[in-house]
Amino acid sequence: MKLWDKGISIDKKIEQFTVGNDREIDIHIAKYDVIASRAHAKMLQKIGILSTIELEQLLGGLQVLENEIEAGEFVIDYQFEDVHSKIEYELTTTLGDVGKKIHTARSRNDQVLVALHLYYKENLGLVKQKTRTFFETLLDLAEAHKDKVLPGYTHLQVAMPSSFGLWFSAYAELMIDDVYLLNAAIQIVDQNPLGSAAGYGSSFPIDREFTTKDMDFATLKYNVVAAQMSRGKSERTIAAALGGLCNTMSRFAMDICLYMSQNFGFVSFPDELTTGSSIMPHKKNPDVFELIRGKCNKIQSLQTEMILITNNLPSGYHRDFQLLKEHMITAFEEVKDILDIFNYAIKEIIVKDIDIHSDLYKYLFTVDNINTLVMEGQTFREAYQKIGGQVQEGTYVPETSKKHSHVGSMHNLCLDKIKAKFPK
Amino acid sequence: MKLWDKGISIDKKIEQFTVGNDREIDIHIAKYDVIASRAHAKMLQKIGILSTIELEQLLGGLQVLENEIEAGEFVIDYQFEDVHSKIEYELTTTLGDVGKKIHTARSRNDQVLVALHLYYKENLGLVKQKTRTFFETLLDLAEAHKDKVLPGYTHLQVAMPSSFGLWFSAYAELMIDDVYLLNAAIQIVDQNPLGSAAGYGSSFPIDREFTTKDMDFATLKYNVVAAQMSRGKSERTIAAALGGLCNTMSRFAMDICLYMSQNFGFVSFPDELTTGSSIMPHKKNPDVFELIRGKCNKIQSLQTEMILITNNLPSGYHRDFQLLKEHMITAFEEVKDILDIFNYAIKEIIVKDIDIHSDLYKYLFTVDNINTLVMEGQTFREAYQKIGGQVQEGTYVPETSKKHSHVGSMHNLCLDKIKAKFPK
Amino acid sequence: MKLWDKGISIDKKIEQFTVGNDREIDIHIAKYDVIASRAHAKMLQKIGILSTIELEQLLGGLQVLENEIEAGEFVIDYQFEDVHSKIEYELTTTLGDVGKKIHTARSRNDQVLVALHLYYKENLGLVKQKTRTFFETLLDLAEAHKDKVLPGYTHLQVAMPSSFGLWFSAYAELMIDDVYLLNAAIQIVDQNPLGSAAGYGSSFPIDREFTTKDMDFATLKYNVVAAQMSRGKSERTIAAALGGLCNTMSRFAMDICLYMSQNFGFVSFPDELTTGSSIMPHKKNPDVFELIRGKCNKIQSLQTEMILITNNLPSGYHRDFQLLKEHMITAFEEVKDILDIFNYAIKEIIVKDIDIHSDLYKYLFTVDNINTLVMEGQTFREAYQKIGGQVQEGTYVPETSKKHSHVGSMHNLCLDKIKAKFPK
Amino acid sequence: MKLWDKGISIDKKIEQFTVGNDREIDIHIAKYDVIASRAHAKMLQKIGILSTIELEQLLGGLQVLENEIEAGEFVIDYQFEDVHSKIEYELTTTLGDVGKKIHTARSRNDQVLVALHLYYKENLGLVKQKTRTFFETLLDLAEAHKDKVLPGYTHLQVAMPSSFGLWFSAYAELMIDDVYLLNAAIQIVDQNPLGSAAGYGSSFPIDREFTTKDMDFATLKYNVVAAQMSRGKSERTIAAALGGLCNTMSRFAMDICLYMSQNFGFVSFPDELTTGSSIMPHKKNPDVFELIRGKCNKIQSLQTEMILITNNLPSGYHRDFQLLKEHMITAFEEVKDILDIFNYAIKEIIVKDIDIHSDLYKYLFTVDNINTLVMEGQTFREAYQKIGGQVQEGTYVPETSKKHSHVGSMHNLCLDKIKAKFPK
Repeated sequence: MKLWDKGISIDKKIEQFTVGNDREIDIHIAKYDVIASRAHAKMLQKIGILSTIELEQLLGGLQVLENEIEAGEFVIDYQFEDVHSKIEYELTTTLGDVGKKIHTARSRNDQVLVALHLYYKENLGLVKQKTRTFFETLLDLAEAHKDKVLPGYTHLQVAMPSSFGLWFSAYAELMIDDVYLLNAAIQIVDQNPLGSAAGYGSSFPIDREFTTKDMDFATLKYNVVAAQMSRGKSERTIAAALGGLCNTMSRFAMDICLYMSQNFGFVSFPDELTTGSSIMPHKKNPDVFELIRGKCNKIQSLQTEMILITNNLPSGYHRDFQLLKEHMITAFEEVKDILDIFNYAIKEIIVKDIDIHSDLYKYLFTVDNINTLVMEGQTFREAYQKIGGQVQEGTYVPETSKKHSHVGSMHNLCLDKIKAKFPK
Repeated sequence: MKLWDKGISIDKKIEQFTVGNDREIDIHIAKYDVIASRAHAKMLQKIGILSTIELEQLLGGLQVLENEIEAGEFVIDYQFEDVHSKIEYELTTTLGDVGKKIHTARSRNDQVLVALHLYYKENLGLVKQKTRTFFETLLDLAEAHKDKVLPGYTHLQVAMPSSFGLWFSAYAELMIDDVYLLNAAIQIVDQNPLGSAAGYGSSFPIDREFTTKDMDFATLKYNVVAAQMSRGKSERTIAAALGGLCNTMSRFAMDICLYMSQNFGFVSFPDELTTGSSIMPHKKNPDVFELIRGKCNKIQSLQTEMILITNNLPSGYHRDFQLLKEHMITAFEEVKDILDIFNYAIKEIIVKDIDIHSDLYKYLFTVDNINTLVMEGQTFREAYQKIGGQVQEGTYVPETSKKHSHVGSMHNLCLDKIKAKFPK
Repeated sequence: MKLWDKGISIDKKIEQFTVGNDREIDIHIAKYDVIASRAHAKMLQKIGILSTIELEQLLGGLQVLENEIEAGEFVIDYQFEDVHSKIEYELTTTLGDVGKKIHTARSRNDQVLVALHLYYKENLGLVKQKTRTFFETLLDLAEAHKDKVLPGYTHLQVAMPSSFGLWFSAYAELMIDDVYLLNAAIQIVDQNPLGSAAGYGSSFPIDREFTTKDMDFATLKYNVVAAQMSRGKSERTIAAALGGLCNTMSRFAMDICLYMSQNFGFVSFPDELTTGSSIMPHKKNPDVFELIRGKCNKIQSLQTEMILITNNLPSGYHRDFQLLKEHMITAFEEVKDILDIFNYAIKEIIVKDIDIHSDLYKYLFTVDNINTLVMEGQTFREAYQKIGGQVQEGTYVPETSKKHSHVGSMHNLCLDKIKAKFPK
Repeated sequence: MKLWDKGISIDKKIEQFTVGNDREIDIHIAKYDVIASRAHAKMLQKIGILSTIELEQLLGGLQVLENEIEAGEFVIDYQFEDVHSKIEYELTTTLGDVGKKIHTARSRNDQVLVALHLYYKENLGLVKQKTRTFFETLLDLAEAHKDKVLPGYTHLQVAMPSSFGLWFSAYAELMIDDVYLLNAAIQIVDQNPLGSAAGYGSSFPIDREFTTKDMDFATLKYNVVAAQMSRGKSERTIAAALGGLCNTMSRFAMDICLYMSQNFGFVSFPDELTTGSSIMPHKKNPDVFELIRGKCNKIQSLQTEMILITNNLPSGYHRDFQLLKEHMITAFEEVKDILDIFNYAIKEIIVKDIDIHSDLYKYLFTVDNINTLVMEGQTFREAYQKIGGQVQEGTYVPETSKKHSHVGSMHNLCLDKIKAKFPK
């Protein structure tokens, strides 16, 4: 056999190329392959392909593997190309011919597909739950700091008065939109694909409604071709949903980094959440928030990757689909970490007292001055010109006492109503 | 004033640069600015800023404009930079000072924001409705052709038997996933943003719940900062949702183009749906389907555009947001056209009789042969080796009589169940 | 013929769908179709397919059209689907059978391909030229403001001293990288594709080297299949190159918007380059720079669009390629405008005197203090701890007199050397 | 200290979050940190900050580390956050205070920046070299199969005659375009950034021209702010260049997968390059080529990731930049593998004899029939109608003897000229 550079044989090189990182990645879906294998085995017994004894043996074998996985002791050794062949091998080694029978009426595609659906569904649920936790933290912070004024900017120019209450709860309410999208993603993966086999179903009389119920899927993807084609489609939707959430967090992190700049000086964090510099002894850098921003931005590109891998491929399975899972799983792990860390870190925020009466911020109140005149009977255009004239001549005196009281404004945050909007 | 090349003054050039295509684009949102202005005026009267007579005058003026828009006679002339200034100008010209009063307690950002929400909501509804029509057409085609066998491919290799029934209804069922995403997008825009003014609310005692009800929004975006920040966020979600639907249609169009190739020859279309060549007299090209594919692929890139425009911008309005609407509106117009044309064209499809007994397709049935042996008591591995041996030796005889009867398979399409899944 | 909604016939609707905006877009490439048609005609005469008289007639007809195009009087009327059919029609109407002969040995694909190559090449040259102008403006500004100190930030935290000289010339030098990429794009389109016909060449004895020379291409794409496949490939490269330049300008515009914020207050612009607010009389918003940033960001997404349209398509022409040109041409027009406007506007910049001795900026100099100690013999770590201690205790006194003299630093900008790097 | 779920302390969790995969990734740049440290040390001696003896000690220490790296024995242990701190630690442990001195007049940013430039430059060179090898393989295959006819398709419809010679050499010539882009990327990274320190240069009298020469950079990035800002910019350019090459390979792999389909049957590969199926005994799937396609498509999304991480960030270093390197390095490793494997595999291609006289392909020759008539004196339109009529009536007889002899056509491939075009 022809040798490659560095003495690797071509066989070995091609094997590495085709297997990729599957052994490492597949650890994350091992648990779900067991769940799906168990449902498949029960169904095979139900339709008479397995005897009750064979089923019990298989369930026993699967239980052993599940325990290993739970305990973190499950490893996909070098001789297996993925988790599915490893699990089948273990069952066959332990149970003999019975172990082989579990592959009846299903294919590898089937297994990957259903295991990924289960992984995605559970992890979307976890992301949603952690989002809810973060959402509540933000509402708590909004309540705690509701009376603290914050300059509001448009075009990055000092514009109108805002508050920390508004700022924290704005990001909370935006997350509700992200959850609408997460819920759509959950609906898409909460459909049992098992039974599509290689993408065209099976001539065995399998009972797909049974496995649907057993694995607690809300429904099934009836059409087996559609079930197979959900590869790529699920991933792009999930990537869009994770990307939406990451967009909210990335922008929030950007605000924090900006507000920590000495030129704003609106917030700070304790030393354990900032980082020094190897050459500047005075630095307290917001690395944690920059990395949140950067990781969130990276994850926003994931949907482009998912689209590019599958786009313009005719229907039917293609090996390219194997490449979808790696960065999806990495992204889920990262998003969960980001939510945990952001939720932890934001609680440590130090909200500064901003001197709203400094010259820098005095024009924040021009609209309020105008509105006072309008309420006194002037037209908006007249009032606008009058205050504008004062600004021009340097005689303007800000009117800082006005309360913004309408629904959703500075002095009427409606936090309870926002909380009630969080979707199930 | 300094002159530009070609005699354009710098003022003019900068004015063009900042206005862009807004005059053309804004025609699409004129109707929605009228709706929102009407709601705003009614609310101003309710809180005592407009008298009943002033309100009637404004409603009358808005009605005139709405009639013009409906009749296609509304034009945004050269002296206006957008639809909002045009409408305010018309009201002021007709009604004098009363016309000016409508801008009380709102800002331009407010107007764009609410008009776009209304536009997006109505158009997402239209897209969903047209998707439903297409979905039903596909189910009808699946029913009509359910007994016609189609070779099923994996890795673009002849794999297992499929059918036109499976093929048509696969794309139908995939569209259900697309509708989950469209519904999430609808939820996101079905929240009234009016009242956020420049992004920080107003010191007028506006009644945002009244306008929410009047414009028939499901709820409101309470937090005014969140309302303003929905710019960009709505667009990226809608782009993801339109992109998901386009992905389904693009892949379907790819199948059609491939199946029309002489090397497959599975389907054809009447001459009026194919195009000739300027140099090859024998050509009947699938241009309509290629353009569907290409346009759908183009629209899939829209979300990247939306993300890039807004990403990493701190909170608060930025003029960059003006650039979001153009390609969103173009995409909506294109998607509606694609759905209409695809729905029309697909009904004209000519499904060919494929000679499944030709040598080309004989291995489609190996899995069915194996399954027969398994049902007769052999293990899957034994049966696999036996049939594999026959293939190798050239003695293999396909078993073409097997019925695939499980839920969602070739001979049990469950079209009624798929139909019932279509979301509200 | 079945009617569509709004009374449009299906024929009409499909015709609109397939033609798209070609009539409008194609105006931009009309000039180049004439140039290529002229070269093609001369070549046909050279190989004996046209007589000398026929050639003269065709050249005359093409001259008339070129004059019309130059004068801005050329219009692609409703009955033509693109510029190529329009030009052929005009020649045939004027010249009879001779007009028809020009289509010998070429196809429509050929025409679009070569016309776009010519358009791209000329416009890349223009973009490069305008980039050079902007580059020189920035170097002039760097020279003019070389002694003005600017706080340098890392992590958006006050870090080390910088200068306006460094800031302006940094963006200038970055543009050199953008030109490397523009030059690569020019190399890619500076290869004559004419003669690929429908993508597989011609059985006429055409002389491709003659047309290459006549149209002043640097070389030709020899392989006709490769020539045809350059559709999509040229576009993605050009989009990457324009995107690179836009990335530089977008980040520069971001800096400007940030530095114009009252919290930085480093630069401002005269009133004619800022915009007011409809509700806040004190506002001077940087709309021009925000729109530069936004448009540049939008253009950065173009390459994803180009990739998505062509990706995974097998070799050979597909109608999808028609969709490539629209946004490419729009992007070229926009980039040229952005360069003109940015170059105009930046000259108007008002550089503020920043009080570097204010408390806000005093830690800018800690590294310089450390370096002084190191030059006096302390190790870096010792010096770092000493100055760090002073910062902690509040006894730190900045050392503001130090000159940064090495190549490319604050007091040694090497503007002449940067200027000399600008690629041909 | 508060505990995290699963018993991880928050400190630990944040540390993991900020370090990420750096320890693993940084192994790839260890070699380059040594090269840059050596150049930096020599320069420090030259300007009098290090004595000759100190320099020798440092060079000795660096040599030891370089040997370890070469031997694959270098490991970045758990207590270091990256390769740079590891190397500094080793030098300090071995050499004491002298080891600490190497950090004089440089910062961590500096080190990462220059090490990445060196890594990118060397690896772009390797990619280019492997591209050249693949290019030559394709030209050899074109020569070997130049007389084998291949049906040419447009719109996936049988169109005109092509050949395997044209097909192989088309992809070769397209790679020349990819190399133009690779060369631009090389120019961009072949500029020494060392000396930018934290992004604003240093007050030490460092000699940047010396290090430029010592590390064999073509020039230096003079402006230190520009040098720092090349982070992100280099990556997006390289990603565009790798993406361009991947686009060529992806489309080539798509052709191969399609041509291996039984419905085309134009090429096949020996068994060791195809893969079987776990349920279909007759399958020989083109997994290697599908994975080439998929990986190439994935890499095409890399530039979007690079853009999203850096876009809209103001100038100056941000920690987000740390995230740029991981997928860049992964992509380089993958591209090199893909080039090796594709080059190996393509040599094994089995080119089939295609029966060009079968009914399926008979219309390939209609244009040649027309051209014959034109050469005999008919106008193109007349000839087109005549042959078109024969096709319609079924009396058409293909003219298969015509030679396509012009430059770059089927019977005149100009392989030597294409070879000569490959850029230096």
